[in-house]
Amino acid sequence: MSSNNVASFNEARRVAIFGGTHGNEMSGVTLVNLWMMNSREEIQRKGVETQPFITNPKAVEKCSRYVDTDLNRAFTTENLSAPNGKDLPYEVQRAQEINRLFGPKGSSEAYDVIFDLHNTTSNMGCTLILESSKDHFNLQMMNYIKKAIAPDSCPVLLNEDPGLKYATARSVAKHSVGLEVGPQPQGVLRSNIFEAMRIILKHALDFIELFNEGVEFPPCTVDVFKVSERMDYPRDANGNIIAMVHPNLQDCDWEPLTPGDPMFQTFDGKTIPYEGAGAVYPTFINEAAYYEKQQAFVTTRRETLAANAIRKV
Amino acid sequence: MSSNNVASFNEARRVAIFGGTHGNEMSGVTLVNLWMMNSREEIQRKGVETQPFITNPKAVEKCSRYVDTDLNRAFTTENLSAPNGKDLPYEVQRAQEINRLFGPKGSSEAYDVIFDLHNTTSNMGCTLILESSKDHFNLQMMNYIKKAIAPDSCPVLLNEDPGLKYATARSVAKHSVGLEVGPQPQGVLRSNIFEAMRIILKHALDFIELFNEGVEFPPCTVDVFKVSERMDYPRDANGNIIAMVHPNLQDCDWEPLTPGDPMFQTFDGKTIPYEGAGAVYPTFINEAAYYEKQQAFVTTRRETLAANAIRKV
Repeated sequence: MSSNNVASFNEARRVAIFGGTHGNEMSGVTLVNLWMMNSREEIQRKGVETQPFITNPKAVEKCSRYVDTDLNRAFTTENLSAPNGKDLPYEVQRAQEINRLFGPKGSSEAYDVIFDLHNTTSNMGCTLILESSKDHFNLQMMNYIKKAIAPDSCPVLLNEDPGLKYATARSVAKHSVGLEVGPQPQGVLRSNIFEAMRIILKHALDFIELFNEGVEFPPCTVDVFKVSERMDYPRDANGNIIAMVHPNLQDCDWEPLTPGDPMFQTFDGKTIPYEGAGAVYPTFINEAAYYEKQQAFVTTRRETLAANAIRKV
Repeated sequence: MSSNNVASFNEARRVAIFGGTHGNEMSGVTLVNLWMMNSREEIQRKGVETQPFITNPKAVEKCSRYVDTDLNRAFTTENLSAPNGKDLPYEVQRAQEINRLFGPKGSSEAYDVIFDLHNTTSNMGCTLILESSKDHFNLQMMNYIKKAIAPDSCPVLLNEDPGLKYATARSVAKHSVGLEVGPQPQGVLRSNIFEAMRIILKHALDFIELFNEGVEFPPCTVDVFKVSERMDYPRDANGNIIAMVHPNLQDCDWEPLTPGDPMFQTFDGKTIPYEGAGAVYPTFINEAAYYEKQQAFVTTRRETLAANAIRKV
């Protein structure tokens, strides 16, 4: 794939855009429905077949995150190879179906790129989620998008956790890109968040078109936030939450949290400070869907990744 | 009840605070749980029995608005008198139970005051909901709260719609007070919203204690926003939403909307202006739970209500 620090990839001819992987994240649901119905030309690019797709239609209909289980954690080897049957949870059946349509995962038949559109209640802006620090195609794409939308910012969250990497809906593709835009409440469509997501997609598809046309992208570096630790809310002996995200931390995704900074506020008004070893960059702060995962926020550390030059084979 | 413009009421000895009428509105759920568990003294007042109560525990457990049907529209005469049976929707059974515990509605046995704690995804701040412009006890309470929290503001929404008035959980009491605090996403607890709700409750209970002690409250006026019209999202022939709340209107609850002002933005970027007869004051703008009610926002008009002096019998 790589020689003299130039990575070669086949043209990215088959691209999918997933919306509704979580049925109450409305920007992706709305954009994908729009593109499926009557605005297909917006996502058409020369030499690219772009497929907009609602991944969890039952959850979309109920406007809930999922029906039986989180679809975006369902693409495990175990689930994808489970004997087919109507007894399986809805999302496991759906994962198998999506794997047939856009995979099979890990095979040469798999789609080249899958974008999976998500919203968050956290103040994360337009965040790109990268699942591998070695995917030079994705690194170059993210570098392209960052430059295209400057001076607006577009943080890249690097999540190499194998548990996540091999379980997301987008992991079916050769190159998987998560897009997480917020803040937006579940079940709500905000025009600013909708338009921000739409613009990222535009630049991403432009990049793929340029790549397919033969443009060579020179080596570059990409600043990322690498997932470090998952922080739970403080709890009592019965497991009940006893503190909230501190007002000084709320909405401050991507800003440094240094030892001694306020982190939580108990219901009786006491401040609980951060006591880690050094500065971290929290994100997914107070995300609605992560209460059930016992997660108040995620800490990250800054890193700079080197991307090789890329060109098509 | 009234003579020489002085309205007399019995002492308000029995007061309930409802949380979790909608199971994913976390400030009320959390405050009521806190008060039930170990902070009861915070809501104790001399001569007042204050009862914190989770109205829809199954919805709270699921962190959803409701299980079968909206509990806050379930307290109709028809539902409350329906033959008891396990075939009734969960919330109808629950409405009957709540009516037995805190009512019966309309009887002399009913609780004196019920506060029902709600959150909204709209930027409504701390809003008090009044169901009758003739309830001088509530008008005096709201005047007291407004003065107590100044210079912070506390809009009063007057909703005399009989359909709502006779169907809310709080309508069981002699004096029903809705509290709607936002913006806060469903399923999320934000410290600023939590504390704002808590402070309103503190002043409300202080007012009741003063009233019970014999303080006479002189005549006053209360500025309110009276519900006028419910506005739906623009839709196509199939009923699909084709536009979002315009960015100029989003988050501008309580600010004037005048004819010609941008109201919606279509997915292809066109602005749909407001075309009413005169200025209105929108609220519940882009509330998550009202998509299923086909409501993008509510228009209101400003009015000033006169409250008689009140004293205890």
